[in-house]
Amino acid sequence: MTLLTPTRQLLTDAALRERALAVVPGGVYGHMSVFSQMPPSYPQFYTSGRGARVTDVDGNEYIDFMCAFGPMILGYANPAVDAAAAAQQARGDALAGPTPYFVELAELLVDTVAHAEWAMFAKNGTDATSIAVMTARAATGKSKLLKARKSYHGANAWFTPKPAGVTASDRAEIIEFDYNDLASVEAAVAAAGDDVAAIIVPPFRHDGLTDQEFATQEFASGVRAIATRIGAALILDEVRTGFRMDAAGAWESFGVRPDLTAFSKGIANGYALAAVVGIDAFKSAASEIYVTGSFWMGGVSMAAAITTIGLLRDGGIADMTAAGNQFRDGLATQAEAHGFTLFQTGPVTMPFIRFDGDDELRQVFAFTDAAIRRGVLLHPWHNMFLSAAHTPDDVSTALERTDDAFAETRELFPL
Amino acid sequence: MTLLTPTRQLLTDAALRERALAVVPGGVYGHMSVFSQMPPSYPQFYTSGRGARVTDVDGNEYIDFMCAFGPMILGYANPAVDAAAAAQQARGDALAGPTPYFVELAELLVDTVAHAEWAMFAKNGTDATSIAVMTARAATGKSKLLKARKSYHGANAWFTPKPAGVTASDRAEIIEFDYNDLASVEAAVAAAGDDVAAIIVPPFRHDGLTDQEFATQEFASGVRAIATRIGAALILDEVRTGFRMDAAGAWESFGVRPDLTAFSKGIANGYALAAVVGIDAFKSAASEIYVTGSFWMGGVSMAAAITTIGLLRDGGIADMTAAGNQFRDGLATQAEAHGFTLFQTGPVTMPFIRFDGDDELRQVFAFTDAAIRRGVLLHPWHNMFLSAAHTPDDVSTALERTDDAFAETRELFPL
Repeated sequence: MTLLTPTRQLLTDAALRERALAVVPGGVYGHMSVFSQMPPSYPQFYTSGRGARVTDVDGNEYIDFMCAFGPMILGYANPAVDAAAAAQQARGDALAGPTPYFVELAELLVDTVAHAEWAMFAKNGTDATSIAVMTARAATGKSKLLKARKSYHGANAWFTPKPAGVTASDRAEIIEFDYNDLASVEAAVAAAGDDVAAIIVPPFRHDGLTDQEFATQEFASGVRAIATRIGAALILDEVRTGFRMDAAGAWESFGVRPDLTAFSKGIANGYALAAVVGIDAFKSAASEIYVTGSFWMGGVSMAAAITTIGLLRDGGIADMTAAGNQFRDGLATQAEAHGFTLFQTGPVTMPFIRFDGDDELRQVFAFTDAAIRRGVLLHPWHNMFLSAAHTPDDVSTALERTDDAFAETRELFPL
Repeated sequence: MTLLTPTRQLLTDAALRERALAVVPGGVYGHMSVFSQMPPSYPQFYTSGRGARVTDVDGNEYIDFMCAFGPMILGYANPAVDAAAAAQQARGDALAGPTPYFVELAELLVDTVAHAEWAMFAKNGTDATSIAVMTARAATGKSKLLKARKSYHGANAWFTPKPAGVTASDRAEIIEFDYNDLASVEAAVAAAGDDVAAIIVPPFRHDGLTDQEFATQEFASGVRAIATRIGAALILDEVRTGFRMDAAGAWESFGVRPDLTAFSKGIANGYALAAVVGIDAFKSAASEIYVTGSFWMGGVSMAAAITTIGLLRDGGIADMTAAGNQFRDGLATQAEAHGFTLFQTGPVTMPFIRFDGDDELRQVFAFTDAAIRRGVLLHPWHNMFLSAAHTPDDVSTALERTDDAFAETRELFPL
């Protein structure tokens, strides 16, 4: 039996894409696929990461502003997190039941997230949003779920952005509103009659292909008040934003607390974990729903999460925010110098870029492709991610390269 | 910040249960919860495992016939699997995209599973069954899913055994039949009209609380013929049985091949991984559905799976089967000697026990509790699991203890 491909030339990105197409539908699926809609130089296959840098199978190293689409919040191969995980891995991950870390991590989340009075764990962000929705339905005895148009809440048939394989029943309980538009929330409530189990929202509008949009104070307070008025749960989907905005909760600065919050991605610095936290009023309902998974009790990712959250609380979020500010300011200065109007939206820890007037994405594809060829991994139409491992030097080096990438883009699109 | 509980006495099983109840709904949820319906001595919290043995937080070591409810198929801390995983973990797990192992593992599954012409990966068994169902719907353009009454196919709202948090819409496309009853399958087909996307079945009936039941040749061939006749997919749910019956597919001995198979649990010896494999006719549809997860491309569990499947093919399944036969034969002899009629059903690698006339499970609770107190972890009403690490000595030692457990049970239930 061959365990590894014997010849080196079959491990190039190009060769692996060919081999993948033969044995995987579409080659690579999901949000990490570059088989469509991506700049030609964006790599598909990787070997390793360290700090803020990732290396592709062809040996190219990138200063990485994707962070594995979020999970790497302290950077690749964080020594403290990996040591905590390795210590438990040596004892075992999947055991006959949970380890003490299960309790410790629940206690830490209750201590860290302002509204949290209990926690549950799973593996995917989708698990977390699904658990939150089921809990809301069990608590309220109602069915309808109100969500913002285009907001992504996981690869559940309820939410997915593509219709293939989805039935009408999958979507029958969903009613949509527009983000930051309270009147549209009220209209959705009216359309639902007296049957709203939950309103689910991300802390800011982080849809792909469009400028990111912070929640307004009015919207955050408004959806909170509406949920309370109609007896529905307010679910904050922090799968993407968790611990990249505010460890206590993304809407703490508004003074707005949800009933239930879903976490995943960065919570364990790359180890597979998701969490739901909630207030006491939903605890009994959460104990009644049937949710489980073969690997959900594993102690390794929980040990990793305890160390990760500790480091994020102890300066990690501040470091990541400083790196994000440095990157945003640098890009803004460079764009202006090269005569571009660059829109940068979203939190600085989760930047999104768009070139003014670039409706067909030709400029942003050219720019990100030029950056990638210079060793800076950027995404042309999805929010990016900073980590606490992005040092001032990393960001400075990246900016030297993006300056050249702007210059190349300007040559392709002369004034 | 406290990362670990400072005082040892707070890490007893009893103390951890108290602490868990304070911060987790129900204390522990899902299939690993012992907060209800379990013998009093069954431990809840664990620290480590090695080979066929697991140790609870109170320091008690058990010869373990649960194998983490399936994942530990080569035994805890298998050196070859853990070395392969650790090597990739040192390079990184969540990266900006997949590693070469993504392609290698897909190729290995295509080489190993008889009907497989492609593969996809996820984290939970539920992900795998959901991907298979969505693929079937995308391929057929139809909606209904036919499943056996009481068969468990994951913690998806479609399937779960409890109604809390589930809406009528969640179940609207499900039509049930009885396992091993072709007439009931035909009735379900008739009830569905021309709208059947898939028939999903486990390779044998492994419901809890009831004798396990192998598929008959007539049933396996029959559901295959019906699915083909009506243009629906036949999905074999091997999440629990995968590589514990036949690496090429659990129904190969019948000469029956499904269109799609779902795997998880044992596939990577405890590292979180799920897989779907299918035939070419469903490959295009599988590429059209939207499924993804933050950690699905991680290389660590795929490296582990490649080593695991290799070792299972190279004698692991045979070793596990020999251990299962030794255990079943020993229990049968002991039960008879103590005057019990013990029903042992299911494959020997996935044993299920029931005492004749024990409708209230009093005898099996007494027996498993007695075994647990003697260091043998058994389950009173769920199928158990053997691993390739169960040596003849492990099984002999376990049987010495179960003999005492039978004796204690006989004292409680005199003839």
